[in-house]
Amino acid sequence: MKLTLVGAGPGDPDLITLKGVKALQQADVVMYDALVHPDLLEYCKPGALKVYVGKRLNEYSCTQEEINPLIVHYARQYGNVVRLKGGDSFVFGRGYEELEYARQHGIDIEVIPGLSSSYAVPALAGIPLTTRGLSESFWVVTGTTKTGQLSQDLHLAAQSTATVVVLMGMHKLAEIMAVFGANGKDDLPVAIIQNGSLADEQVVTGTVSTVVDLVAQTGISSPAIIVVGEVARLRESRLAALQQSITTH
Amino acid sequence: MKLTLVGAGPGDPDLITLKGVKALQQADVVMYDALVHPDLLEYCKPGALKVYVGKRLNEYSCTQEEINPLIVHYARQYGNVVRLKGGDSFVFGRGYEELEYARQHGIDIEVIPGLSSSYAVPALAGIPLTTRGLSESFWVVTGTTKTGQLSQDLHLAAQSTATVVVLMGMHKLAEIMAVFGANGKDDLPVAIIQNGSLADEQVVTGTVSTVVDLVAQTGISSPAIIVVGEVARLRESRLAALQQSITTH
Repeated sequence: MKLTLVGAGPGDPDLITLKGVKALQQADVVMYDALVHPDLLEYCKPGALKVYVGKRLNEYSCTQEEINPLIVHYARQYGNVVRLKGGDSFVFGRGYEELEYARQHGIDIEVIPGLSSSYAVPALAGIPLTTRGLSESFWVVTGTTKTGQLSQDLHLAAQSTATVVVLMGMHKLAEIMAVFGANGKDDLPVAIIQNGSLADEQVVTGTVSTVVDLVAQTGISSPAIIVVGEVARLRESRLAALQQSITTH
Repeated sequence: MKLTLVGAGPGDPDLITLKGVKALQQADVVMYDALVHPDLLEYCKPGALKVYVGKRLNEYSCTQEEINPLIVHYARQYGNVVRLKGGDSFVFGRGYEELEYARQHGIDIEVIPGLSSSYAVPALAGIPLTTRGLSESFWVVTGTTKTGQLSQDLHLAAQSTATVVVLMGMHKLAEIMAVFGANGKDDLPVAIIQNGSLADEQVVTGTVSTVVDLVAQTGISSPAIIVVGEVARLRESRLAALQQSITTH
């Protein structure tokens, strides 16, 4: 009886780790989330049970309290359970709760980290979270806390020179930008990335004072990643590079 | 002519992405760092040039100014260059500088993110950077800034409830702990992880007030990752799980 938490990465199925693929190949049961790319299930051995447990980032209709006992049930009945989650399962993924629940029920546990969207999605969009001269730290915060309030940490983050990444924060975008605005950062660059790493990736870039309107105009929506900081401006270099590439080839 | 930046992940060669492996298989030249696992070079096609460019995390003897033109040289002479770096190349990796340099010299660029040690190494040691009730954000900061001074952001981080991760900070451990101590956090848990994800992984856990002595006693050293926050305490559950596993099997 074993539970292996596997992070599937940000979307592109080739961004899973080799170790994650090997775990899928060994699994008797794979319990997967809405944000997991369907191609990944093709690594499963014939006869493996594939269980969809839903749970989009902004949708808590399928509760953690339902998933935890299901994991134990499948581990006891079939043996090797892989819990396949989008991004990394330990970065706001509630994977630790699943792992602890399983462990307390006598099930062996293993963690195979995945690429966290927090930095991998910006990187793929041409934005490094740190760069000499622009940012020497980054702060990753969720827009969706247990209480429904914005994390107080955001007020400290807005005072810092850190690149601030907000996950699951699109429904609070105006409120988040107001925190930065209150710290005199109206002109700080912001990038918002939806469906990062996939063919339908969409990116909006602006500033603390303009991005809310830009989002309304473009219709970009959840799940998306919000990057606030000087590095968000580097996205423009990427566009310049693509332009150059189109012109010269 | 193309440069592909590939993040190799924290150490274990199975923690590279599938996309990273595919890039290695296509490479005419692979330029790799000291922290990259040698097994990864076995994915290269026969005849591929493998170039060691050194550069351990705490050693700047081989300068960035030497690496950048080398990349351009190899791309022009051989075609496909993969720059294989430990962890992720955009998280304090200076990968962006290499990419920009290459782009400005007319070379196509691509980024394939890797598992950043900042969260993957703690996860593998049983520490999630965020967990409901303990931490709703995490802050990743380098101990080695351009100026040699500790980042001022650390003072804000020490006031927050964020889990703080310091990379390349072992030579400033006492100074970092003093910042937390000055914010009344003497009893905050701290974990230090060396060679994370590898067989010779070493972990020391303590608190802000005890960890400097514990590090001196155990001889744990660079490169290591410093995790400061309530979540560092969860390492103990992991040890309990291992104990349970040893007892019951």
